[in-house]
Amino acid sequence: MGDLAEVVQPKEAFGWAARDSSGVLSPFTFSRRTTGEKDVSFKVLYCGICHSDVHMLKNEWGISTYPLIPGHEIVGIVTEIGSKVENFKVGDKVGVGYMIGSCNSCDNCAINLENYCPKMIFTSGAKDLDGTTTHGGYSDIMVANEHFVVSIPDNLPLDGCAPLLCAGITVYSPLKYYGLDKPGMHVGVVGLGGLGHVAVKFAKAMGLKVTVISTSPDKKKEAIDHLGTDSFLVSRNQDELQAAMSTMDGIIDTVYAPHALPPLIGLLKTNGKLVFVGAPDKPPELSVSLLAGRKIVAGSLIGGMKETQEMINFAAKHNITADVEVIPIDYVNTAVERLLKADVRYRFVIDIGNTLKSTFQI
Amino acid sequence: MGDLAEVVQPKEAFGWAARDSSGVLSPFTFSRRTTGEKDVSFKVLYCGICHSDVHMLKNEWGISTYPLIPGHEIVGIVTEIGSKVENFKVGDKVGVGYMIGSCNSCDNCAINLENYCPKMIFTSGAKDLDGTTTHGGYSDIMVANEHFVVSIPDNLPLDGCAPLLCAGITVYSPLKYYGLDKPGMHVGVVGLGGLGHVAVKFAKAMGLKVTVISTSPDKKKEAIDHLGTDSFLVSRNQDELQAAMSTMDGIIDTVYAPHALPPLIGLLKTNGKLVFVGAPDKPPELSVSLLAGRKIVAGSLIGGMKETQEMINFAAKHNITADVEVIPIDYVNTAVERLLKADVRYRFVIDIGNTLKSTFQI
Repeated sequence: MGDLAEVVQPKEAFGWAARDSSGVLSPFTFSRRTTGEKDVSFKVLYCGICHSDVHMLKNEWGISTYPLIPGHEIVGIVTEIGSKVENFKVGDKVGVGYMIGSCNSCDNCAINLENYCPKMIFTSGAKDLDGTTTHGGYSDIMVANEHFVVSIPDNLPLDGCAPLLCAGITVYSPLKYYGLDKPGMHVGVVGLGGLGHVAVKFAKAMGLKVTVISTSPDKKKEAIDHLGTDSFLVSRNQDELQAAMSTMDGIIDTVYAPHALPPLIGLLKTNGKLVFVGAPDKPPELSVSLLAGRKIVAGSLIGGMKETQEMINFAAKHNITADVEVIPIDYVNTAVERLLKADVRYRFVIDIGNTLKSTFQI
Repeated sequence: MGDLAEVVQPKEAFGWAARDSSGVLSPFTFSRRTTGEKDVSFKVLYCGICHSDVHMLKNEWGISTYPLIPGHEIVGIVTEIGSKVENFKVGDKVGVGYMIGSCNSCDNCAINLENYCPKMIFTSGAKDLDGTTTHGGYSDIMVANEHFVVSIPDNLPLDGCAPLLCAGITVYSPLKYYGLDKPGMHVGVVGLGGLGHVAVKFAKAMGLKVTVISTSPDKKKEAIDHLGTDSFLVSRNQDELQAAMSTMDGIIDTVYAPHALPPLIGLLKTNGKLVFVGAPDKPPELSVSLLAGRKIVAGSLIGGMKETQEMINFAAKHNITADVEVIPIDYVNTAVERLLKADVRYRFVIDIGNTLKSTFQI
């Protein structure tokens, strides 16, 4: 097994890890630190499967180390708090997202943008401040500094809430930052997957007109009937695109697969904003039509902790959760295969609390 | 001659026109409309040579019609006003830039963004409201609706002021719109030509730290000693680029020739903005690093009339003019050749008032 190099820490933990770039997950015993004075420890109940988990599992970004325990859409119940923890108590419902640390001293950290801190520490597969490797939420317990823990209001079901910790904040943050949150605005959402369907929900709750732009005509009925999308464009249908030219204030583009930007830029009004939240594998080509309408192509990467809490509170107020397919942990490898075929509406969430049993331990 | 198709209008006019896509300019007799009730007529004194004149002369954008009289950086003295003109009188110093008309009814026109009106009428080579072809400032007189005429304060020398009507507003507008006008900010200017050198002057007057990014090391001394640039990066020098990574709030990119964007995006801080004002011939490739710093790639095209007047007033207050090489009209073809070799510091301006003589008429 590849776990010999693991630093042994005081707290026994158990999860599922990939041991190599095959990405196949299997049971794995490891350890976590004891609860530090600013730490919150919690029993993991649910963890979402994000597409970036798959990139990491298969080392597609070239930065993975093994064993790798993925998972950064994590919710659970606090079991222990450190002596200096201020905002949480045992029994609280909490969540952890894409990051569990940052430098706390740079310009970005100073303005609640830990997500853009050059030393931001990912929740999974990164080097933590103490030199150990971070392990994600496909595991029974988490220990994290309270600054990177969010409080989850009682009315949010935990399974549907888990994906908000990454997918939710990833689409909420650009809607806010780029001013695409004013009632009556018209926003396009490219791709109707884990990110896109949550973007639609947030945008509708903000009072926006929402158009989904997708390669899949078969998603139209559900987008309109179930998610409340105002209209639906099939991205390969030139007539539909032409009719929608210059009508959108902004577009949230959640698709990481290569795709043409000029048609999307054409959908924007003057001063319109096309915001990527799904990192493309290959740099896309820009269009000179940016100039003609003072248009913007921009990026956004998750969100800061303050805004993540704000997003969760907004979701609670508007009863927004992700549409999830809850699975047992021993289905996780199948779920990853299905995710690669986009065969999920719209997010897999692992029922860690009820199905992760250390009796699987090997 | 190609002028047989010209609609004959009441007012005799004389200029220099290209007759075909060779772009060679020669004397040309034509006509303009009489002064309408909302029109200002003026004797042209100076006209700048903008790089887009060359694109149009040689039909490089595929939209040119001939005979073509270029020129959209035009200044002169009012000779006649229409009965309903409110803001000008005979003898006033005035200017006309890139556009002489718009629809006056769309959303953009309503908020002083005539430059983004879908029916915006270019000053040269476009179809005017009355169906005639617009003719630019390489000519003795202009007639334009007062809405598209700006007032030029007395302290601005007219020759150096002419390029402000296009080059000036093109760089001033994005500095303002993208919030890159706050004292202490650090802004990069890519390319030190007609647009770039004016961008440096405006940015310095706004209290910014300015770094010029250029392919030409030989421009460094003048950029620093003469223009007051704070620093200078040679764009092919990896060490210089590396040292400046993540230091800039924004970049005004004035270069239309193909060039790599990722190094420029790397120069931006979190929330940094890269703004194109020189339309690239070929769509550039984006970089995924947009996401990691919530960065923006954007466009901007000249500016609205209200902002153009604001820019001219700002220039007058800070004694900003373009650095110009004033030439006689019969040097214009040579000037175009030199412009193509970037052999000008920094803008050619034709002395129309003193050198355009109808005795050249053929």
